[in-house]
Amino acid sequence: MIGVDLGGTKLLAGVVDADLQVHARAHRAAPALSLQEVLDTVVSAIDEVRAAAPSEVVGVGLGIPCLIDRRRGVAMMSVHLPIAGVPFGDLVAERVGLPVAIDNDANAAMLAEWRFGAARGVRDAVLLTVGTGIGSGMVVEGNLARGSIGAGPELGHMVIDADGPECGGACPNRGCLEALVSGPALAREGRELARAHADSALGRALAAGREITGALVTELAHDGDAAAEEAVRRIGRWLGVGIANVVNIFNPEVVVVGGGVIGAGELLLGPAREVVAARALPPMRDAVQIVPSQFGAESGMLGAALLSAAETP
Amino acid sequence: MIGVDLGGTKLLAGVVDADLQVHARAHRAAPALSLQEVLDTVVSAIDEVRAAAPSEVVGVGLGIPCLIDRRRGVAMMSVHLPIAGVPFGDLVAERVGLPVAIDNDANAAMLAEWRFGAARGVRDAVLLTVGTGIGSGMVVEGNLARGSIGAGPELGHMVIDADGPECGGACPNRGCLEALVSGPALAREGRELARAHADSALGRALAAGREITGALVTELAHDGDAAAEEAVRRIGRWLGVGIANVVNIFNPEVVVVGGGVIGAGELLLGPAREVVAARALPPMRDAVQIVPSQFGAESGMLGAALLSAAETP
Repeated sequence: MIGVDLGGTKLLAGVVDADLQVHARAHRAAPALSLQEVLDTVVSAIDEVRAAAPSEVVGVGLGIPCLIDRRRGVAMMSVHLPIAGVPFGDLVAERVGLPVAIDNDANAAMLAEWRFGAARGVRDAVLLTVGTGIGSGMVVEGNLARGSIGAGPELGHMVIDADGPECGGACPNRGCLEALVSGPALAREGRELARAHADSALGRALAAGREITGALVTELAHDGDAAAEEAVRRIGRWLGVGIANVVNIFNPEVVVVGGGVIGAGELLLGPAREVVAARALPPMRDAVQIVPSQFGAESGMLGAALLSAAETP
Repeated sequence: MIGVDLGGTKLLAGVVDADLQVHARAHRAAPALSLQEVLDTVVSAIDEVRAAAPSEVVGVGLGIPCLIDRRRGVAMMSVHLPIAGVPFGDLVAERVGLPVAIDNDANAAMLAEWRFGAARGVRDAVLLTVGTGIGSGMVVEGNLARGSIGAGPELGHMVIDADGPECGGACPNRGCLEALVSGPALAREGRELARAHADSALGRALAAGREITGALVTELAHDGDAAAEEAVRRIGRWLGVGIANVVNIFNPEVVVVGGGVIGAGELLLGPAREVVAARALPPMRDAVQIVPSQFGAESGMLGAALLSAAETP
């Protein structure tokens, strides 16, 4: 089967077999200009990997960064792509002549991590992907759970600081986890610490006119720059407040953290674990593991392929 | 079957048939002095209603205000009762000679509201009982879900205000929903508004030396006292922040609000609904109903009886 992870800025497609081996990959920038352009990009990536497949492809799974109304198969409220209100899976299916299963990209990632990865074999797990925003998936009592219209879970839009910063985009809320923990939030902390510590590597980067991005802060933190490390720690502590909530709410065995920001690794997860130890209820806190995703940037694509397998006869 | 709702301060037992008709009730104060006393109280209430039962009783269900480790059948972290670390259900079963099913009291209430009450027939629902603290239950994809060790959900210990008031008791956290929304929180707001508005009924009650409790604030709010109404509204708005989280996380069809504080009715739920409308994500927000519990103070007892029916052969 073919899995496609359509992100806000890039796309990854792959031919994947039942053991989750990947036989071909295609990368694309995902232009956000028009529906037609997004559709062409998805179809061309599918065509490319399909041509390289070792055997006949029977279905496509598509993970998209959207709330989805599964009652109608329609994408809703996409922050990054012009596909809101569109039955995007049907349009792709028509073009490629294959059945297309569609789901939220983080639900797809949760599926891959649950069936084959960091949450393999458990009955209760939660996944958070921390990137431009926060995606989330949940396995509750052995079911990948999506809520009544299939639009959940949106743990990134759980308020943890009621008077905190506005969340922005399509979210009317403030102090959401996503407003405090994301690549842009890391960049914001990085800029603040760069200004406060002009003699740090981060400060020198700012003075030299470099753009302070989450990726740059992460890179400098890995290089041992104290200011950059502190920026990552701040984000990690907020992440810990969010994970403590997840632990108290779901009593999961595993919380999986993925997405671009997990590139910071233990610099991020260490402070998060400390906050969970300090704030979560003891019986739940002692029953949970907080781990990085096993499949990293490929979990969405792999999960999308599994989605296709589950829905293809 | 017999259902027993063992609260922190009082106990309700009832003989309940398969249609949820109640044939006998027994009320007790629940003394928090010793395990033996609590056990004697539970057993005497069971004996009383059993003697009044129209037919032979085959099992007992027991709802307790505790996190429970269902792997071991042991009560954990009871804030109000001296039964932590005790296999309380086994002790009761030994005394009454009947099988005893045990669960968290709010999970029992969720079960009653889901099977027969305000959330009847839905696949995804959440219940919050707002009293001395907050109890919670969740139905996810058609399962009453309790997490990996059976200790969840504890939505009352979801942080909504990271630097908010200490939660207290066995919870090491701060700014939890329970710290902001509960009978004691309503009393706290009431005292503050009584001091600020000496000419209000609430202010006069304080000046007359009456204890400002959540129940008194609710009573005066129903009488139309503006200060008391404002105290209830403040709690209602915090409740709304918590319910907005619940809506974004679970995408439920129904959120049921029960517990003593729901005595304030629409004075509480109105402001909560306004905040949900302002803060939750549109597709989820538009798919949810926020309603008071149908069975009120009896939902825990009724659910405990259903629990017994489910586990009795």
